[in-house]
Amino acid sequence: MTALAASDRSEGKRFIEVCNWKLPYEMPESVKEIRVYPCKPPLDCDVVIASLPSDIALESEAAFAAAGYPVISNSSAFRMHEDVPLVVPEVNPDHLQLIPAQRKNRGFDRGYLVTNPNCTTIGLVMALAPLDQAFGLEAVMMTSMQAISGAGYPGVASMDIIDNVMPYIGGEEEKCEEEPQKIMGRFAGARIEVAPFKVSAQCNRVPVQDGHLESVRVKLRGPATIDDVREALSGFRGQPQELKLYSAPERPIIVREEKDRPQTRLDRDAEKGMATVVGRIGKDTIFDFKFTLVSHNTIRGAAGAALLNAELLVAKKLL
Amino acid sequence: MTALAASDRSEGKRFIEVCNWKLPYEMPESVKEIRVYPCKPPLDCDVVIASLPSDIALESEAAFAAAGYPVISNSSAFRMHEDVPLVVPEVNPDHLQLIPAQRKNRGFDRGYLVTNPNCTTIGLVMALAPLDQAFGLEAVMMTSMQAISGAGYPGVASMDIIDNVMPYIGGEEEKCEEEPQKIMGRFAGARIEVAPFKVSAQCNRVPVQDGHLESVRVKLRGPATIDDVREALSGFRGQPQELKLYSAPERPIIVREEKDRPQTRLDRDAEKGMATVVGRIGKDTIFDFKFTLVSHNTIRGAAGAALLNAELLVAKKLL
Amino acid sequence: MTALAASDRSEGKRFIEVCNWKLPYEMPESVKEIRVYPCKPPLDCDVVIASLPSDIALESEAAFAAAGYPVISNSSAFRMHEDVPLVVPEVNPDHLQLIPAQRKNRGFDRGYLVTNPNCTTIGLVMALAPLDQAFGLEAVMMTSMQAISGAGYPGVASMDIIDNVMPYIGGEEEKCEEEPQKIMGRFAGARIEVAPFKVSAQCNRVPVQDGHLESVRVKLRGPATIDDVREALSGFRGQPQELKLYSAPERPIIVREEKDRPQTRLDRDAEKGMATVVGRIGKDTIFDFKFTLVSHNTIRGAAGAALLNAELLVAKKLL
Amino acid sequence: MTALAASDRSEGKRFIEVCNWKLPYEMPESVKEIRVYPCKPPLDCDVVIASLPSDIALESEAAFAAAGYPVISNSSAFRMHEDVPLVVPEVNPDHLQLIPAQRKNRGFDRGYLVTNPNCTTIGLVMALAPLDQAFGLEAVMMTSMQAISGAGYPGVASMDIIDNVMPYIGGEEEKCEEEPQKIMGRFAGARIEVAPFKVSAQCNRVPVQDGHLESVRVKLRGPATIDDVREALSGFRGQPQELKLYSAPERPIIVREEKDRPQTRLDRDAEKGMATVVGRIGKDTIFDFKFTLVSHNTIRGAAGAALLNAELLVAKKLL
Repeated sequence: MTALAASDRSEGKRFIEVCNWKLPYEMPESVKEIRVYPCKPPLDCDVVIASLPSDIALESEAAFAAAGYPVISNSSAFRMHEDVPLVVPEVNPDHLQLIPAQRKNRGFDRGYLVTNPNCTTIGLVMALAPLDQAFGLEAVMMTSMQAISGAGYPGVASMDIIDNVMPYIGGEEEKCEEEPQKIMGRFAGARIEVAPFKVSAQCNRVPVQDGHLESVRVKLRGPATIDDVREALSGFRGQPQELKLYSAPERPIIVREEKDRPQTRLDRDAEKGMATVVGRIGKDTIFDFKFTLVSHNTIRGAAGAALLNAELLVAKKLL
Repeated sequence: MTALAASDRSEGKRFIEVCNWKLPYEMPESVKEIRVYPCKPPLDCDVVIASLPSDIALESEAAFAAAGYPVISNSSAFRMHEDVPLVVPEVNPDHLQLIPAQRKNRGFDRGYLVTNPNCTTIGLVMALAPLDQAFGLEAVMMTSMQAISGAGYPGVASMDIIDNVMPYIGGEEEKCEEEPQKIMGRFAGARIEVAPFKVSAQCNRVPVQDGHLESVRVKLRGPATIDDVREALSGFRGQPQELKLYSAPERPIIVREEKDRPQTRLDRDAEKGMATVVGRIGKDTIFDFKFTLVSHNTIRGAAGAALLNAELLVAKKLL
Repeated sequence: MTALAASDRSEGKRFIEVCNWKLPYEMPESVKEIRVYPCKPPLDCDVVIASLPSDIALESEAAFAAAGYPVISNSSAFRMHEDVPLVVPEVNPDHLQLIPAQRKNRGFDRGYLVTNPNCTTIGLVMALAPLDQAFGLEAVMMTSMQAISGAGYPGVASMDIIDNVMPYIGGEEEKCEEEPQKIMGRFAGARIEVAPFKVSAQCNRVPVQDGHLESVRVKLRGPATIDDVREALSGFRGQPQELKLYSAPERPIIVREEKDRPQTRLDRDAEKGMATVVGRIGKDTIFDFKFTLVSHNTIRGAAGAALLNAELLVAKKLL
Repeated sequence: MTALAASDRSEGKRFIEVCNWKLPYEMPESVKEIRVYPCKPPLDCDVVIASLPSDIALESEAAFAAAGYPVISNSSAFRMHEDVPLVVPEVNPDHLQLIPAQRKNRGFDRGYLVTNPNCTTIGLVMALAPLDQAFGLEAVMMTSMQAISGAGYPGVASMDIIDNVMPYIGGEEEKCEEEPQKIMGRFAGARIEVAPFKVSAQCNRVPVQDGHLESVRVKLRGPATIDDVREALSGFRGQPQELKLYSAPERPIIVREEKDRPQTRLDRDAEKGMATVVGRIGKDTIFDFKFTLVSHNTIRGAAGAALLNAELLVAKKLL
């Protein structure tokens, strides 16, 4: 069963009445008629996929989990809580082992909370994971050029972004600096031991519709050639690929050789928006390597991330 | 006297006939009628201000200097030649002392070559110089978000930049990595001893008309607080300010405190496009500090740079 | 004396505390400290220049006029009221003669209301007036491509306009269709006899920061050649030019001959944003002539319009 | 068999070597290896689908037709030739009956020339055809806001279109004014009797990637209500729909009721880019009705148009 929940003022209405539809295609007829329920248990469904403002998520998602629902959350509310898995299926599926400790800590019976990372973190972590696995990661400098769709609707005022770069996105740099350390950390029984590399993030908004581009430098612990880096990235596969999860990209990382790729518009939709496209891999003058990546912020960075987590949970019989 | 020179195919024509005028205001009547001369000596003028493609510049500018003309060049052709000053008037006016050695090396009599840096370098160097002077600079990571006007006309194809970020600008990263070391180097008689800090550059083109924004991290040799950095930047003054050169910005660096500044559109025109606007100064997780800067690429980064160099040369009686 | 008034919640604060400053240059120090008063009489000033939301304007502006203040309004609230002058100084300064009737109707003593038109109307009317005067106007088809700044801040959501054209601007087409008839109408004692031509408007928002471009076709009552049209437009002068009002453009209409002008970015700032730039004048296949115009929406279309009206009122000793 | 032909300088190379690939997805492996042949007969194929610059098309396409190839051309070279069908399959499939006369005139044996219209014409004609059929069309005013992709690559310079509207596209207004009269004309044996309505076009380039938006007014010969117009448009079907051609949109015209649709970005991809989306249907103050339409310029306006013509020719056993 599928049930849709939103704020109290939408309760009882049909989706068509409450949704400010902004997608290129028309709302499917079947979706228009979906009834909107209040955002609290009970809901007639087996799993809650939540994308709530952080302040609301804190209470509402906990209530669903306490009522026995598995909650897959796109919100930042619980991401950094010690007993909540922050999962990128290709990178740290083993962090789902936090669930028993979480249930115990919070008195959850069958319910639990699983989160996916910030839309800028996820593309970065995808590229960092194989490098960390192969060579050990010591430090990462990332500068982002992010799409407007990351801010939702109405989101960014057009007067702030037409013919402009906006060097500030609230909370974004902090998220990009701390989430990778947890995601790439080590499962240690009841908590995650954060990874020992440092991340520095500078986040900018640019006038593009969809797709985050990131300029990245990495300092490695072990030796590597450009070819080694290229191979580690392009050969990367994880559980979603092994388990052939429905939404999994065949190649989680696509490495491009052209000197002018990846570009936001040309590469954001690779593998239906679920892949990270990496290019311009080169030696850095200060760190070891530099490269550029593009990741789709509303697909791999939001809805697709939650969906892939759900598919992973099903495969692991946690759903 | 003012004389205008261009390629042979424009020779003898009036400027209005050969210029593809793209500025917002109308071409002044007096400018329309200017005769175009071939790009070789003699020209009826006292100084040659040149903005030529690099390959043409190599021959043409040398010919003018050999014929006795002071040449102030915006081209990259001679920038890294050991005996050619690469000058930002606020930063290294003393490098003009290379001129005697240059004349000797090249057999120039009264002529000489002076260059100004790449449009992305210049904003960066403006912000680095006071930090180097105050605390010593060890390493710099810079990621640029550059305007389309930097590529001239027709330059960047609109299909390459509308709704897009282009992560490649030919030769730009190399220029940004080596020019600062020379500009901030030490005059050592007949050559410049390059500065001992490293620069790493990742250069991107974004859909803005004018103004380069740069995300910068710096590692310093000595201790400094955020307030120290802020004061070093906002208090920075150089010879153009002391000599009150006509095109000199009153404040070469403007430090903004708002969390969302500098922005390309709002800050590129500060001090008539001649200032570097710095903001978002903060502690970095890996290096010491991070900040954002905006500099106008066609004013301070090109025409204004050459003009200010000319004014400096006049003040120093080299013109 | 200058006094600044805003909504009650800003009362008593300094301008710097309540203003969301979005202009390229810094807020002048003298402006920062201006005290904000409530938006109702008395205010310590001689004239009220108002730019209020239409619903608030209806009450607030009437209150100021009733209290004896001349009110120059940029709002649409009173524009179409029979006894309120809707004035473009170059076109219908004689409509200020409505003031006595207005005072009588509304029981105003020394106060009165004068309005300026919608930002899209004004550029259109500037170009239509000389054609009507010279040849008689029968019908006008206008299709606009309007800047985002016309919607204020935050105004247009970036997701609605990046890589997009938005074919709807609330109320805009109606304003463009009825305001020209009044502005170009005949003063008939206590009211304006609307002009007998029809206007059809289709208004679109495009991704440009400032400047409205309009594609226009006109049907005339009398014969005219393209040269006649060009001369009528470029020779147009009005009272602001004769009286040499401070903000008056020297040439209210600039006619450009290039096949690709006017362009929004290149022509919006002509005569400091106070001129209408017309180009592409040609024969139409259905009406008589077609042409394109550009007018700056926030200068000539708003603040500059109110200012020029104020200057006209001073010149006419109505202020 | 599929064969690919291009200019002489590409002859004998593989497609990957000569193509400047600018599409979001990667070039398929099978396409990379395609050999490029010179652009003249013989070619190992049954039909030539040509998209050549107009001057080259004139000679090359005629040569292919003379050599016995059916040529389906996207070029403007032959569109207005009296004996060459200019076909929109939904509108004038009967114009293919010109082929016998064309063969006779030009001495073609089995070969012939069929053309598809300009990318701006096609969306317009799709919306005009049902109105002409139902009510008779007398006059049409169209103002376009066209995407940059219409100009190919590199095409429009970014400096000409970022933060700008460009009111000139070479030859575009003329094409939009004369092509509809031929397409909607009557087959009269050996030629087309052009339709008796007039079209006025003003064509502008705006900063959008794909999709042309057109503001349209129509004057009809017979009476109609808004509902009549809406029904004529949304009920429109042609031979591609009846014949269920593979590339045919199920609904050639999609009528939207929202006040702010169609929008370029949201509606250009309707029916895989093959439909015309119409909205904002309303009474005009001068003509009878006004509306807005969006059509995808590189799909329905170019490649998709040629393909649908090919499919129609197959269905009619002309291929």
